[in-house]
Amino acid sequence: MTAAIALAGRTRGLTAPNPNVGCIIVRDGRVIGRGWTQAGGRPHAEASAIADAGGDITGATVYATLEPCAHASPRGPACADLLSAAQPARVVIGAGDPDPRTNGKGAERLRAAGIEVTEDIEAAACRASMAGFLTRIATGRPQVTLKLGLSIDGGLAMDDGRSRWITGAAARAHAHVERARHELILVGRGTITADAPKLDVRVAGLESRSPRPVLISSNAAATPAGWLHIASPDQIASLPGDHLMIEGGAGAAAAFLAVDLVDRMLVYRAPVLIGAARTLGDIGLTDLSQAHGRWQMVDMRALGGDRLEIYERRRS
Amino acid sequence: MTAAIALAGRTRGLTAPNPNVGCIIVRDGRVIGRGWTQAGGRPHAEASAIADAGGDITGATVYATLEPCAHASPRGPACADLLSAAQPARVVIGAGDPDPRTNGKGAERLRAAGIEVTEDIEAAACRASMAGFLTRIATGRPQVTLKLGLSIDGGLAMDDGRSRWITGAAARAHAHVERARHELILVGRGTITADAPKLDVRVAGLESRSPRPVLISSNAAATPAGWLHIASPDQIASLPGDHLMIEGGAGAAAAFLAVDLVDRMLVYRAPVLIGAARTLGDIGLTDLSQAHGRWQMVDMRALGGDRLEIYERRRS
Ligand SMILES: NC(=O)c1ccc[n+]([C@@H]2O[C@H](COP(=O)([O-])OP(=O)(O)OC[C@H]3O[C@@H](n4cnc5c(N)ncnc54)[C@H](OP(=O)(O)O)[C@@H]3O)[C@@H](O)[C@H]2O)c1
Ligand SMILES: NC(=O)c1ccc[n+]([C@@H]2O[C@H](COP(=O)([O-])OP(=O)(O)OC[C@H]3O[C@@H](n4cnc5c(N)ncnc54)[C@H](OP(=O)(O)O)[C@@H]3O)[C@@H](O)[C@H]2O)c1
Repeated sequence: MTAAIALAGRTRGLTAPNPNVGCIIVRDGRVIGRGWTQAGGRPHAEASAIADAGGDITGATVYATLEPCAHASPRGPACADLLSAAQPARVVIGAGDPDPRTNGKGAERLRAAGIEVTEDIEAAACRASMAGFLTRIATGRPQVTLKLGLSIDGGLAMDDGRSRWITGAAARAHAHVERARHELILVGRGTITADAPKLDVRVAGLESRSPRPVLISSNAAATPAGWLHIASPDQIASLPGDHLMIEGGAGAAAAFLAVDLVDRMLVYRAPVLIGAARTLGDIGLTDLSQAHGRWQMVDMRALGGDRLEIYERRRS
Repeated sequence: MTAAIALAGRTRGLTAPNPNVGCIIVRDGRVIGRGWTQAGGRPHAEASAIADAGGDITGATVYATLEPCAHASPRGPACADLLSAAQPARVVIGAGDPDPRTNGKGAERLRAAGIEVTEDIEAAACRASMAGFLTRIATGRPQVTLKLGLSIDGGLAMDDGRSRWITGAAARAHAHVERARHELILVGRGTITADAPKLDVRVAGLESRSPRPVLISSNAAATPAGWLHIASPDQIASLPGDHLMIEGGAGAAAAFLAVDLVDRMLVYRAPVLIGAARTLGDIGLTDLSQAHGRWQMVDMRALGGDRLEIYERRRS
């Protein structure tokens, strides 16, 4: 299943409104097929993996990170039907599909076809691998990742706005790869004025994966050509794509935090002190107790002399 | 040598103006004596270890974190003479003693007595274990450790000054143990006014190790009874003790950082965002490039839901 999750990661940010799914088919202890949702959302992972196996998967075990879909579409048959016809011995499912058109019906249909079905295998990791899709289904909006480049003492910039550079080359390169995992990248008007950022992915081989830039501003006329525009954080629901990255600045970040619309934070932390620094600013806290219990550090790694801290919003 | 360093840690903060040294004596693969500098600075580690071994250490190997002293004092003989008389086969030395009264003469005297001497074993770790003593010898002032309790975004407190609590119980307990490793604990007048902090060590078994409180203020009359007072950071040279911990607040911390008088930072980081926060304030930076290359993270550990980040000032 871990290998299937890795395959699913290949098209994270390219499959909306479909989930990015990974699928591996094993027979006699050998992998005979591998597939993942293709860019644009079709073919699905299961169809790709069956094709990769040469079509014949009778008696095999199929690992899929998401429950095979039970709904046909003009662009292809339902995966549950495809698998039922192909007659593997067993289908191992990571996460259930909350889409009401599937939601248990996929597994049911496989069982009705005489196939053994095992559910909820590495479900949390599978869900994490398609958090954008699941956030969209659950809340109607993209998953929101806030990127912050911070000093030890939490500075985003010097107090006069200079922010080049706090973090080093390795951290900035990593942030570019993260961009490629998002369909949408948002900044506030202050950042456009101060930095005129390009917001594209400048990593060899990933240039084509540059996300669509989005401006948040009360002034729609400030929107650069080719950009999308929203006038308030809640308007992200209308944006195309399931993964939105907030690149700055402080005002935009604080606006999303204040309305609790950040799911994940990438904090690139440099081992420097700024002192008189520009920091986040008001996020609506009236008491310190409200700050607790919201964020959990889920990962951390060294990037050159800097470190990346990844936090997730705890939601119960 | 690692075991000797651990012994040296027992009286860190209690031996000034003497270094806290650790000593282990081994014969035939068995530890026959262990010693460390006693509180007040005497007996020295070597004398303690020889006594622990019952007096007879002929043919043994002696491990000492610091070069044995070559200067007798009214309070006891020189360790180099003591060891020369005791005739171990070998003395293994961690760090050389920069005190001009010893500085190589200790090792020399041992060799003259026919004892094999090995120097510079785990020297960096040995030096770190007596950084207070070495800082005092090199700079004439105590080693300065700045303690900060910070949010992800670098807040020391909410912008109205409320700071209870950012970090949790485990982090606060750890900070109390750190206090016990310092002879001196300093706060600015703002912290006295805001928090009236007790600054004692409230950890069972360590109550007697509470450091001496020091106030930094332009107003000496504000000094509480029993406290020491300084009117500017450079006056720390006059304070008794080789380890000074700065407990707050922002103004005092920034004042020491601005004159580059912080050697070590303990950042207790809570996984919370404050947003509109009180932060360090001006530390004299005029350009971001000046911020780089100063600090190195040397350790990190989890403390409950918080994390401790330990930084050291790089000095070449
Ligand atoms: N270290 C880092 O990670 C990082 C990253 C990027 C930028 N920066 C730095 O951050 C600074 C820019 O920060 P900033 O706070 O001045 O600018 P900003 O956040 O980029 O832009 C603030 C503007 O965004 C719009 N906005 C914010 N909240 C809104 C809301 N709820 N609804 C509608 N519009 C909203 C407003 O535009 P209108 O006034 O047009 O309505 C507001 O003036 C620069 O110094 C830049 O270098 C640092
Ligand atoms: N999160 C944490 O780790 C932590 C720890 C402790 C405190 N705090 C918070 O920090 C806040 C207090 O910070 P603060 O900045 O107001 O107070 P502060 O740093 O405790 O005190 C500032 C005062 O210290 C004196 N001072 C500072 N630099 C000096 C210098 N170079 N020479 C002489 N005197 C100097 C001045 O006193 P005079 O005006 O008398 O000259 C100055 O007004 C409180 O809200 C407290 O809760 C947070």
